[in-house]
Amino acid sequence: MTDGRRRVLGIDPGLATTGYGIVDGDGVHAEAIAVGTIRTKASTPRADRLHRIFEGVRALIAEHAPDEVAVEQQFVAENVRSAMAIGEARAAAMLAAAAAGLPVFEFAPTEVKESVTGHGGAPKEQVRDMVAIHLGLTAIAGPLDVSDALAVALARLADLRLEAALARR
Amino acid sequence: MTDGRRRVLGIDPGLATTGYGIVDGDGVHAEAIAVGTIRTKASTPRADRLHRIFEGVRALIAEHAPDEVAVEQQFVAENVRSAMAIGEARAAAMLAAAAAGLPVFEFAPTEVKESVTGHGGAPKEQVRDMVAIHLGLTAIAGPLDVSDALAVALARLADLRLEAALARR
Repeated sequence: MTDGRRRVLGIDPGLATTGYGIVDGDGVHAEAIAVGTIRTKASTPRADRLHRIFEGVRALIAEHAPDEVAVEQQFVAENVRSAMAIGEARAAAMLAAAAAGLPVFEFAPTEVKESVTGHGGAPKEQVRDMVAIHLGLTAIAGPLDVSDALAVALARLADLRLEAALARR
Repeated sequence: MTDGRRRVLGIDPGLATTGYGIVDGDGVHAEAIAVGTIRTKASTPRADRLHRIFEGVRALIAEHAPDEVAVEQQFVAENVRSAMAIGEARAAAMLAAAAAGLPVFEFAPTEVKESVTGHGGAPKEQVRDMVAIHLGLTAIAGPLDVSDALAVALARLADLRLEAALARR
């Protein structure tokens, strides 16, 4: 992307379901290029599940050539064990980006919600509806992991718009 | 290793300090081939720290060609945030093994301590002293992350000895 456009791969990492959304933005409009999930089974050995997420993100990067990766950085978990699983899945996604030489930007859920809906405590359904409006879609199919991934990509594009606006002042 | 010998890379993963120890075992004797740590700075971006651990483990595998990787699977953390950091570091180590096509075996700290000292609640210093005895060393230099890594490699070798003994019956 050389004409001021930027392609961002947004990821909502999870050991069982990792949502992704690739969004092109030009400072005014944003367009979803690809959305989906990477899923792994609980019966698969942990290292293989992580490798599946790693390879899944690598394949997305190879196919869609994003400029940057934005990852939702969750800080809340039911317990230590689930926190470790979240950390492991996140590491797999971040490592795939780092291995491809792409910059990784982390966003807390409240930052994403604030950016997309104007309200840091917005429920996930409201995030999904606002993501659809931002992208000019009537609805977003699939689990909430997909809209969360698109939301983090949009949050990164909003930061880029802000940076560009500040640079012009 | 074809003559009944097995080379195990033991890893005690941590975001700041990842300990490693490579041990050769033939069912009777065990010998340390390489030990050390992979360190990352807190000031380095998270994705880069994980990439450093990933590449560090990859380099160890390339240089020493272990047959298997054994990873300490800690389940205790001070809080959710530190649990996520532990999970991320562990994922980086496991992914490097999975990317190299090596089998990864996970051990809980109590399993490692039980295997090496005969007592699942042994303090880390006792683990270190028993690891030294198992490996015929007078002492183990470096932080406890190193002796913990050697201990998990020894725990895997002990399991292999047990499997071999059962297969002979």
